[in-house]
Amino acid sequence: MSQLPPVPEGFLLAGVHCRIKRDPQKPDLTLVMSEGPATAAGCYTQNQIVAAPVILDRQRTPSESIRAVVINSGNANACTGERGMRDAEKMAELAAMVCGAQAEEALVMSTGIIGEFLPMDLVEQGITSAAVKLGNKPASLESAARGILTTDTCIKVAGRTVELAGRKVTVTGIAKGSGMIGPNMSTMLGLLLTDAPLTADAAQRVLEPIVADTFNCISVDGHTSTNDTVLLLGNGEAGGDPLGGSDLDNFADALHGVSAELARAIAADGEGATHLITIEVAGCPRRDDAVAIARAVANSPLVKTAIAGADPNWGRIVSAAGYAGVAFDPARLSLELNGVMIFKAGTPVEFDAAALSRDMRHNRDVAIRLHFGEGEASVRFWTSDLTAEYVRINADYHT
Amino acid sequence: MSQLPPVPEGFLLAGVHCRIKRDPQKPDLTLVMSEGPATAAGCYTQNQIVAAPVILDRQRTPSESIRAVVINSGNANACTGERGMRDAEKMAELAAMVCGAQAEEALVMSTGIIGEFLPMDLVEQGITSAAVKLGNKPASLESAARGILTTDTCIKVAGRTVELAGRKVTVTGIAKGSGMIGPNMSTMLGLLLTDAPLTADAAQRVLEPIVADTFNCISVDGHTSTNDTVLLLGNGEAGGDPLGGSDLDNFADALHGVSAELARAIAADGEGATHLITIEVAGCPRRDDAVAIARAVANSPLVKTAIAGADPNWGRIVSAAGYAGVAFDPARLSLELNGVMIFKAGTPVEFDAAALSRDMRHNRDVAIRLHFGEGEASVRFWTSDLTAEYVRINADYHT
Repeated sequence: MSQLPPVPEGFLLAGVHCRIKRDPQKPDLTLVMSEGPATAAGCYTQNQIVAAPVILDRQRTPSESIRAVVINSGNANACTGERGMRDAEKMAELAAMVCGAQAEEALVMSTGIIGEFLPMDLVEQGITSAAVKLGNKPASLESAARGILTTDTCIKVAGRTVELAGRKVTVTGIAKGSGMIGPNMSTMLGLLLTDAPLTADAAQRVLEPIVADTFNCISVDGHTSTNDTVLLLGNGEAGGDPLGGSDLDNFADALHGVSAELARAIAADGEGATHLITIEVAGCPRRDDAVAIARAVANSPLVKTAIAGADPNWGRIVSAAGYAGVAFDPARLSLELNGVMIFKAGTPVEFDAAALSRDMRHNRDVAIRLHFGEGEASVRFWTSDLTAEYVRINADYHT
Repeated sequence: MSQLPPVPEGFLLAGVHCRIKRDPQKPDLTLVMSEGPATAAGCYTQNQIVAAPVILDRQRTPSESIRAVVINSGNANACTGERGMRDAEKMAELAAMVCGAQAEEALVMSTGIIGEFLPMDLVEQGITSAAVKLGNKPASLESAARGILTTDTCIKVAGRTVELAGRKVTVTGIAKGSGMIGPNMSTMLGLLLTDAPLTADAAQRVLEPIVADTFNCISVDGHTSTNDTVLLLGNGEAGGDPLGGSDLDNFADALHGVSAELARAIAADGEGATHLITIEVAGCPRRDDAVAIARAVANSPLVKTAIAGADPNWGRIVSAAGYAGVAFDPARLSLELNGVMIFKAGTPVEFDAAALSRDMRHNRDVAIRLHFGEGEASVRFWTSDLTAEYVRINADYHT
């Protein structure tokens, strides 16, 4: 992570270690405060098994009056029944209290192991110690971004500052990913903060398609989690009336840019990943078809291991496209790998496999482009490769 | 593989090495001949990209007059366009010729690398040399079972002999799997031979639900291939009229037993596998729901790596069930792992994780049982774990 973006006006952040994780070097609790009431919008997991903090946030968003967000890592507070719900409510209440807000003016996110109760005494200590460290310096943002990580190897932060209606508006986001990253946000947490003035309705309306196009177009292992959450908070500290019309469109562009940068960073930091794979599926009749195909390719262990091995094994790519549940004419299908056409209109093309393999071995970025020649819809999807290190991380996580 | 089952009456088999594979120790071509015309039924891949031999066999089954089946390993003859179709037809013609049959009385299967043309001169030599080795001894069956393997570590053979309508009837099958094994038969080849008298219609009608319940209820990596094929040949050499009524039901039971044994063997021999995982999903309103849930659990890299690591990480199992696209009430869901109840009616149960982990470390078989308490439908599904060795095999396969 190079230069950190600025913290939007009126927000204060801090990340601390409160011993939910064993390693004292790893912060495990992040507190975010808005000095004034912020509108808040949310997008959540589509898993049938939903963690307590997701249930809570779903009830509370969209909202016009959120003052605090508290996030812990190391424990997902998922599959924890009624006690888990009480713990999530208590966590929100404690966060609200230290920010001088009402109990229901806080939101909660959790990530980590499923099925264990939160150590509420430690969480309480964490919230208290985070409260005294709240700040808007780069170090504050950095510690907040660090407090939400699990097996991530680096923080994910992105920001944009744009001029809207003559005022400077900042959007800055933090996110975490790494494992259990699948279609529809998996164990992915994202928090997008802006000082733009937004109605709750506009915030929710802007957020949903952006999440569909960014955080829902990544996959590490196809495993949708119980806790996925993306929240957008807008406190209006930049001043002016709530955004509408072309100002709102321009704000959405900035938010899309920040979200795409964070989503890409999550895929790039997939557990054990040695390649970031960009899958572009084009020429489909409908966007849903393109997404289904991109997802099948992204989740194929055979595609992912081939790329880990720098192997231009295109048969695995086209055959994965073929089982996505989307009908197409193979005779119209073409495939480029790192810009090299290797399958054209249903027929293999002669190519220099050794040179392409060298290219894949020396570059972390791999580009797969599938064109179906049957329509105008397209999608861009990001995933990581599958390495022995992924297996090591995930075979050893719990015990 | 212990004692081999008998070869059904009137069938002759042989497997030879004809240099499609580089390693001279590995047979790569199998020829099967029926002395008289056999009825033949087939079930094929659901991939949109379909290999030439699958196109050919689909045209020729069901049939009342098949005399030969030729199978090569090491090359899938997939994504090979019109030349691939001509090669598949030529292969069938050569096999028919050496068996004294008409060109169209032969079927073909291929498995191996996608997108390369078959070395037809070698295939022709292979068919000629297999023809002179045809036999019905255990060694013939063993060589035939070996000639269809790719990265499999062992042959898959199963058989049953039953008495039907006062006559002894034998069903014996061979299969291969190992990689690209996903829902709906993936790179899975199966050949079921019987001396039972069957009409083509009965053969097809009996085969389809059995494949749905056996070969389509396994997964190694969820990657449905271009070449999956299961063929059933019945030459009636056991004598008597075509089976019907309860005789046909009893035959179907024997065929189901053989198919289940082969399917289980494929899952157990998944690339790099150290555990065979049996997933039982019960208490669903509809069987399709149960299958979708079993498949999601079977294909979750997080579940598969947890089991490789002997880790009773049940949160990964229930969360995989939760993203299968099937609505259910989490408060009714229960989970047993190796017979130990660890999640009951939506709530974690205290259990001895260390003892369960030891049990998983010392036994190759792992049993996952999910009960949804919402109906009577159930399914049994087999898969393998995901190890670093799987990654090694598949990162290094091509180059």
